[in-house]
Amino acid sequence: MPSSPPTEAFPAHTPAASQVFVTVLCHGPLTRSDIGGRAGLSAAAVTKAVRPLIEAGYLVEDVGEETRPSLGRPANPVRVDGGRALFIGVKITGDEIIAVLTDLCCRIRVARHLPLTARDPGAVLTLASELVRELLAEADGFGAPVHGLGVAVSGDVDRAAGVVRYSPFLEWHDVPLAELLGMTTGLRVTVDNDVRALTVAEQWFGAGVGLSDFALVTVGAGIGCGLVVHGRVVSGAHGVAGEIGHVVIDPAGPPCHCGNRGCVEAIAADPAIVAAVRERTGVAVTDAAGALELAHRGDQGARDVYTRAGDAIGRAIGTVANLFGPERVIISGEGLAAYDLFAEQIRDAFAAAAFGTAAQCDLKTRPLPFDEWARGAAATAIQSFIRSEARH
Amino acid sequence: MPSSPPTEAFPAHTPAASQVFVTVLCHGPLTRSDIGGRAGLSAAAVTKAVRPLIEAGYLVEDVGEETRPSLGRPANPVRVDGGRALFIGVKITGDEIIAVLTDLCCRIRVARHLPLTARDPGAVLTLASELVRELLAEADGFGAPVHGLGVAVSGDVDRAAGVVRYSPFLEWHDVPLAELLGMTTGLRVTVDNDVRALTVAEQWFGAGVGLSDFALVTVGAGIGCGLVVHGRVVSGAHGVAGEIGHVVIDPAGPPCHCGNRGCVEAIAADPAIVAAVRERTGVAVTDAAGALELAHRGDQGARDVYTRAGDAIGRAIGTVANLFGPERVIISGEGLAAYDLFAEQIRDAFAAAAFGTAAQCDLKTRPLPFDEWARGAAATAIQSFIRSEARH
Repeated sequence: MPSSPPTEAFPAHTPAASQVFVTVLCHGPLTRSDIGGRAGLSAAAVTKAVRPLIEAGYLVEDVGEETRPSLGRPANPVRVDGGRALFIGVKITGDEIIAVLTDLCCRIRVARHLPLTARDPGAVLTLASELVRELLAEADGFGAPVHGLGVAVSGDVDRAAGVVRYSPFLEWHDVPLAELLGMTTGLRVTVDNDVRALTVAEQWFGAGVGLSDFALVTVGAGIGCGLVVHGRVVSGAHGVAGEIGHVVIDPAGPPCHCGNRGCVEAIAADPAIVAAVRERTGVAVTDAAGALELAHRGDQGARDVYTRAGDAIGRAIGTVANLFGPERVIISGEGLAAYDLFAEQIRDAFAAAAFGTAAQCDLKTRPLPFDEWARGAAATAIQSFIRSEARH
Repeated sequence: MPSSPPTEAFPAHTPAASQVFVTVLCHGPLTRSDIGGRAGLSAAAVTKAVRPLIEAGYLVEDVGEETRPSLGRPANPVRVDGGRALFIGVKITGDEIIAVLTDLCCRIRVARHLPLTARDPGAVLTLASELVRELLAEADGFGAPVHGLGVAVSGDVDRAAGVVRYSPFLEWHDVPLAELLGMTTGLRVTVDNDVRALTVAEQWFGAGVGLSDFALVTVGAGIGCGLVVHGRVVSGAHGVAGEIGHVVIDPAGPPCHCGNRGCVEAIAADPAIVAAVRERTGVAVTDAAGALELAHRGDQGARDVYTRAGDAIGRAIGTVANLFGPERVIISGEGLAAYDLFAEQIRDAFAAAAFGTAAQCDLKTRPLPFDEWARGAAATAIQSFIRSEARH
């Protein structure tokens, strides 16, 4: 067993106290009065929540010239001390494991990658535990405890139970990953679907801060979608939500692995693009980079494939906007490398599909390097720590 | 001006008190302990919230044999006294106005219909005010005050502002309906989109009670959808949400009034069905009843049109399930008259379109007669009264 840091409880024991901390984490530095305004809490409630958080070092007060107004409460802004605690985020793909060490503000301090040689739970567990131990050793140099481990896996993940129900890339069924990694690392572990984890990172630390309704659409090996409605990530009553990849664009389109035809994923995900480029051009490209290169060299057949992919993504985003009216849709993922090839088509198809004022939804592209997926996992660990909901 | 009842404030002045009342309204009769369990509140908080509601007559205690346990709080269940207050709900369609008088439990006491001879705001306002006055006169006989008026209109409605932004059926733009009807009736007025209003009625009094995530899909002159996510009706950041009618099923399908092709509404709404039946059969049917009769007589062409409509509705519900993962989808609307013709197709297409466990979503049909739309409007008035949010 590794030498794990002692487990420390987060000193916010009421929903109001958690809310105050999250408000400062997402929007700080803020004065107590601004916190109250944003969180809908009284000045007294904010002051009461802030005190133990300052005492425990999670919040710090920026002492300026005017340390205390003549009447009333301190007017100095408070902010989160990011260095007060560390977290580890791990993203498991079919090919590699990516792990990051972040601070409490989810800033990456160290990143590590390891190629995956086998996909069975035992092999992945051994490798992931090894990476986590390396990062725990690195963490010693930062002088702050590691307070949680987040793990992001694509597929059907039951976060509350800490179980990967089904992961197609890994071919896993019902793997109790949180419990297993808790035993090998000694850390509190949160396991979540990778797109939902990235959505949490965007909600708390990215382009979703301050929005009660937004969507994150990821484009790459698959087409994923995280939804935030009424300020909370949508998980689905049966574990499935955000499956934008299986919105049918054309019932006469190419077959999809889900059994239908013409799903967004069967038109716009990397494997579909590679197959379509091969078919259209006769060039034996083998991966997304090869297809992209061909299109960037001006091959019209390859370019047409990207145009069609952009059309499918834009229509699917239109469907999301028509159904739940998000304020913003963030488009991201490794597929954004081709964004110059299909950006216009995404916007045009979205505008045509959006019904009435749904077209006012803001489309925002945000390149997220692969480490960001691991950072998303760290964000879920930070969330669990603040809400004291992770298993140990 | 009509003799309006004196305005009385609802005696629940905190979010917790409203929540206690709504819990009893939706689930009662309940003991205080059950209320606390469902609402996540302490016994003390429940007792504190219940007292003024009993004193004001909104809640009543069912006194049984065991009026008080030897120790602790009263164990008798409390329930809402439905007769304590009345509400009026009005649904405005392109052809008629339907108005109902309901009690506090949203049970219809009186219903009235009036055909609409003109659709301009002035004519509709006059007619609606007349109907409301009739119902106010009827209300005198029930010995309880009328505490609010809800109005449901299809289209883009800004409930908070009380304004109908755009209603295609009525050809209205920016009509401040709440303010106008408040002046002519003296009542507190809530204006909402008709599908959202029906969704509120299902959430508080129907097949959505107790569900934090469900959808209501209405089939008829249009195809509508109300969504409840995390326990709240989704309104959309820009006023559009639940536009299932414009999910594209087939990009090579018939043109839709929205400018796209093959939308659900262009395949499965009444006008589309009537047009398709005429085209397929050569029989000059003029309305949904005529098309339905032909299909019920066994005409294969007409039956095929309903099969295709069922397929489109089922696929669209699959998309909703894949994106939100609702626990249940309630299918309703006047189009259910044809349910025997497309029920199987809806279920099959839904099962094929649903991804993984999203297929576990419960599809439930619920015939709602036209009065129910007006009842939905009354439900929004009840909601506004309890939350003290209606304008006066």
